[in-house]
Amino acid sequence: MLNEDLCRRNIHSMALKAANNNVLFRPHFKTHQSAEIAGWFRDEGVTAITVSSVSMASYFARHGWKDITIAFPVNILEINEINQLAAIVNLNLLIESVKTATFLSEKLTVACGFFIKIDTGYHRAGIDPFNISLIEQVLFAAKSPCLQFRGFLTHSGQVYHARGLKELKHIHQQATESLLVLKKEFRCQFPDLIVSTGDTPTCSQINSFEGIDEIRPGNFVFYDVMQFTLGSCALQEIAVAVVCPVVAVYTERKQVVIYGGAVHFSKEHILLAEDANPSFGIAVGWDGSNWKITDKLGVILSFSQEHGVVSLTQAGCELKPGDLIAILPVHACLTAHLMREYTKLQGRIIATMSSEGNIYKSQASFHQDY
Amino acid sequence: MLNEDLCRRNIHSMALKAANNNVLFRPHFKTHQSAEIAGWFRDEGVTAITVSSVSMASYFARHGWKDITIAFPVNILEINEINQLAAIVNLNLLIESVKTATFLSEKLTVACGFFIKIDTGYHRAGIDPFNISLIEQVLFAAKSPCLQFRGFLTHSGQVYHARGLKELKHIHQQATESLLVLKKEFRCQFPDLIVSTGDTPTCSQINSFEGIDEIRPGNFVFYDVMQFTLGSCALQEIAVAVVCPVVAVYTERKQVVIYGGAVHFSKEHILLAEDANPSFGIAVGWDGSNWKITDKLGVILSFSQEHGVVSLTQAGCELKPGDLIAILPVHACLTAHLMREYTKLQGRIIATMSSEGNIYKSQASFHQDY
Repeated sequence: MLNEDLCRRNIHSMALKAANNNVLFRPHFKTHQSAEIAGWFRDEGVTAITVSSVSMASYFARHGWKDITIAFPVNILEINEINQLAAIVNLNLLIESVKTATFLSEKLTVACGFFIKIDTGYHRAGIDPFNISLIEQVLFAAKSPCLQFRGFLTHSGQVYHARGLKELKHIHQQATESLLVLKKEFRCQFPDLIVSTGDTPTCSQINSFEGIDEIRPGNFVFYDVMQFTLGSCALQEIAVAVVCPVVAVYTERKQVVIYGGAVHFSKEHILLAEDANPSFGIAVGWDGSNWKITDKLGVILSFSQEHGVVSLTQAGCELKPGDLIAILPVHACLTAHLMREYTKLQGRIIATMSSEGNIYKSQASFHQDY
Repeated sequence: MLNEDLCRRNIHSMALKAANNNVLFRPHFKTHQSAEIAGWFRDEGVTAITVSSVSMASYFARHGWKDITIAFPVNILEINEINQLAAIVNLNLLIESVKTATFLSEKLTVACGFFIKIDTGYHRAGIDPFNISLIEQVLFAAKSPCLQFRGFLTHSGQVYHARGLKELKHIHQQATESLLVLKKEFRCQFPDLIVSTGDTPTCSQINSFEGIDEIRPGNFVFYDVMQFTLGSCALQEIAVAVVCPVVAVYTERKQVVIYGGAVHFSKEHILLAEDANPSFGIAVGWDGSNWKITDKLGVILSFSQEHGVVSLTQAGCELKPGDLIAILPVHACLTAHLMREYTKLQGRIIATMSSEGNIYKSQASFHQDY
């Protein structure tokens, strides 16, 4: 279930913050993966976007988006798809090795922008900001008329392990400093280069982006229990929930089992502040047309493939088989990916890149199946 | 990627073990979710199956399966679908509360079998085997011409936490004893009642099913790293792997990043015997047509939405961007669900219930997308 009002409000707030800071807002669309929700960003003036795969870029290109950064180290095996895509949109790639730069210099047939991915401490992907020599080698290998250097890009994923706002601010400050040193170093050679950063915790919790040219948060469009735990949003700002039926009730151990599991939510879990055990979601009331954040029914203790076990609050102890409850997901990106489409509170279904063409298939009458 | 030979061998071994033990083999199809793979079970004489949802039952009914147990507490909101399905196949439901039994007695319009779910120690769903009074109440509430009692069913999910074969055997023995006490108690009233058990670790590691009438393992069709860790299979018996491209190489920290993440594998992780940190998969060589189990390249340290970080062995340190490697999944059921179709080693694609109709869509030429 998707609350469009909340979702639009989340988009509006972030667009406004970017505008107030005079930074380019290039939201990451991997969270929602939906052309219709993308339209709500367009309503806020967004024209440049971020995606995480060539297929996602192709989907949004089909839906009229013309300025796309694939914020994922180039998979050189997709060179044909990249050339075809770059012929119809302004495409930016992510490079972080001499080998990939050399390959693209030789194989790109159409003009493409590229960012160099900088590792500002997350240690997943990217070049160490102090490794100027490697950056110079990459830039040298990328000397092709088809490759235009756009700037330096980072994702400070370590903010997801930050303990509090102070640590988050410190991570952001360090990342910004690293990027600014690089900007200064290479500005003479590339006067238009920009520095790009942005993750939802930082973009939600920090108000000034001094030194930054572009932000790329994605999850904020929905938010989720993880972002709530990190202090990025209130529970009231979470714009998606999965409505699940209760199938079994265990009064003695204050638990219910729902039809809702790893195939609907993934297995992402988190430590809630008030709970020492890992939680897989928060259960709240469902009144038939909306979820009720104030009606806390319990927390998800575990997910199997299709079962979820909910540990109940006192209010939850009234539940019986056949009741519907709403689950706020720990990680909305993965849950949205698994559910493959959204139902608006008003009942209309919204497709994603993986459900397009199948829309309403799930609503097809049972009889047609035979 | 799916190795049909290994997969058929896994099916054959389990079918043979069931036959040797004179128990009904009712495999769980939630792992593969594919009509074509289901056909390989039919080749071994299988006619009765287990599924975990009404929609999965409908899918296999459409593909000619006539004897289906939905091994999941009934979601009473699906009563219409259940009535329609029970009209065309021999359907067995799972009941574990008076409320659900009463509801079904009133609302079922077609004959249906049912099992009572017994909780033999997993504490996810089911009735305590000592709660004879509740079982009697359920049986009384289920006194409807449409409801036929089949017996007692359990899933000893706690074997996934067993430390070694001795503990696994102990769990199985206790579960069997509980079921046999119930069988004895209710046999006069229901002379044909059976007891049904079965999970892949137990069915793979135990050779005698004395006292048991039916087994319902599912995962063994593919096996996975979790089953390997539990001692249910050799790495050589795992029949599925996901082939992923290397997109970034970090020689100093002996890691590569692959395009392969939580949207492909889920986030299930496990402690490998030789490794104290959680692992999300095992990376082995891919020679262009098959994976090479002896060519160990590393283990997956973490998954983000689409990134995977691989900690390399010495052999893995030769990898470069654009190389393909094969990842053996920790939990094949979730990975198969996310991937939505299989490619046989010979290159042909096999659909599942969630890709049916879309088959070859993923192979559609890029140009058609525009």
